[in-house]
Amino acid sequence: MAPNDQTSEVTQPALVSNADDRRISTLLITIAMQAEAMPIVKRLDLKKDDGSLFPEGVSWVRYHGTYKNLNVNVIWPGKDANLGVDSVGTISASLVTFASIRALKPDLIINAGTAGGFKVKGANVGDVYLPSDVAFHDRRIPIPVFDLYGVGSRKTFSTPELLKALNLKIGKLSTGDSLDMSPEDDKSIIANDATLKDMEGAAIAYVADLLKVPAIFVKAVTDIVDGDKPTSEEFLQNLAAVTAALGEAVTRVVDFLSGKLLSQL
Amino acid sequence: MAPNDQTSEVTQPALVSNADDRRISTLLITIAMQAEAMPIVKRLDLKKDDGSLFPEGVSWVRYHGTYKNLNVNVIWPGKDANLGVDSVGTISASLVTFASIRALKPDLIINAGTAGGFKVKGANVGDVYLPSDVAFHDRRIPIPVFDLYGVGSRKTFSTPELLKALNLKIGKLSTGDSLDMSPEDDKSIIANDATLKDMEGAAIAYVADLLKVPAIFVKAVTDIVDGDKPTSEEFLQNLAAVTAALGEAVTRVVDFLSGKLLSQL
Repeated sequence: MAPNDQTSEVTQPALVSNADDRRISTLLITIAMQAEAMPIVKRLDLKKDDGSLFPEGVSWVRYHGTYKNLNVNVIWPGKDANLGVDSVGTISASLVTFASIRALKPDLIINAGTAGGFKVKGANVGDVYLPSDVAFHDRRIPIPVFDLYGVGSRKTFSTPELLKALNLKIGKLSTGDSLDMSPEDDKSIIANDATLKDMEGAAIAYVADLLKVPAIFVKAVTDIVDGDKPTSEEFLQNLAAVTAALGEAVTRVVDFLSGKLLSQL
Repeated sequence: MAPNDQTSEVTQPALVSNADDRRISTLLITIAMQAEAMPIVKRLDLKKDDGSLFPEGVSWVRYHGTYKNLNVNVIWPGKDANLGVDSVGTISASLVTFASIRALKPDLIINAGTAGGFKVKGANVGDVYLPSDVAFHDRRIPIPVFDLYGVGSRKTFSTPELLKALNLKIGKLSTGDSLDMSPEDDKSIIANDATLKDMEGAAIAYVADLLKVPAIFVKAVTDIVDGDKPTSEEFLQNLAAVTAALGEAVTRVVDFLSGKLLSQL
């Protein structure tokens, strides 16, 4: 197989065939941080469940309810049992997405969250994106084909009508387990042609692809990676305002999804 | 909480209390690569199952059988469906470990595999280690407490009798999703005081801790990270010989476990 063939194969969109098309009924919204989840939970009037969906002892939290005829589930991996901070990053996101898909059999996954944005690619604090592609920037495996596996580039589920209706921004998302950015990360992010940088997206796309569930991403920019301010400082400063904007955008997305077939997005 | 308190808390060993102690009956051996798995599968005379343990469509493979009165399960995440290479790294390892624990309820997890070794810490190609500690070196989150969460340092299940009986080497293991090592990784690996570098260990320890299953690690050195040769070249060159040594060491570990209580390791 020529490298070009491999690349085009791995970035193929997960098409919805006529046989797979269906009216959207159950939504799985995965969110890494409590601060990101709560504005959405409030807007959609969801209630915390009894925890029986997940293995005993894990900190994972499900908020659910019926909103505009949709069975809506917001899943947050909760606080780390040892340290009490949000269980951010690719591993928690993968596990909770896997267990939630198995338990809820959703028609569509929405990964909502905050992200760093690159001003050189047009991002501003507060912008909300529907990423077209996701990939990893911190999985360097310099062996042929393993290198492509490490990058793990995937198209997100195609939603041209949603994009048009909501007037959200479009760009590519790059994922890694660090909040900061090393020179190697920077190189990979440029290779990924990314406008946004987060800590979960490509991992959730991997799990969604593994279990054949369409996935879309709603990412709000908390900080400018190629700006003057230190990422962690800017991130914490803007978190409250940007998660409010994220909550509003996710609500508009869910409003749009209500009553639609997958093929109508 | 003072930083020292936090550190000591997160590196606490997962103790087996008297109430938790039990005779080892079911073993879960997680392995990232087919080349690492096959020598063990052959030595323990395990058979591939029908795939019904895992979700339909995933590439995960279980080999199982009864060996010296133990129910032995070797789990390998299989080849990536898009690219055909072994599904290495923390995300696949986390998912397959999670699903296997849920399905098999093992008494003990063994993560077996190859690793890079640091000669400055005494490692040589072909050495087999039972790591005492695991941590991540590519999850930099420079916000207080989140930084400790990112490092994710954990003691492995304590096995003083096993170490003594088998005369294996001991050292700390550091995990990241890249086969190469960036200057930032190097700094974190030094901070982790690591003798070994792999791509799955700390992720498997995270899942084992989450679901409260004791976990040990058997890691054989394929390449010297601080040596003269490029890692990927040395890794591929030594893979066959070192996986044979790994197979032998894992068999000796399983032989030792047969008939033992968790408290007798």
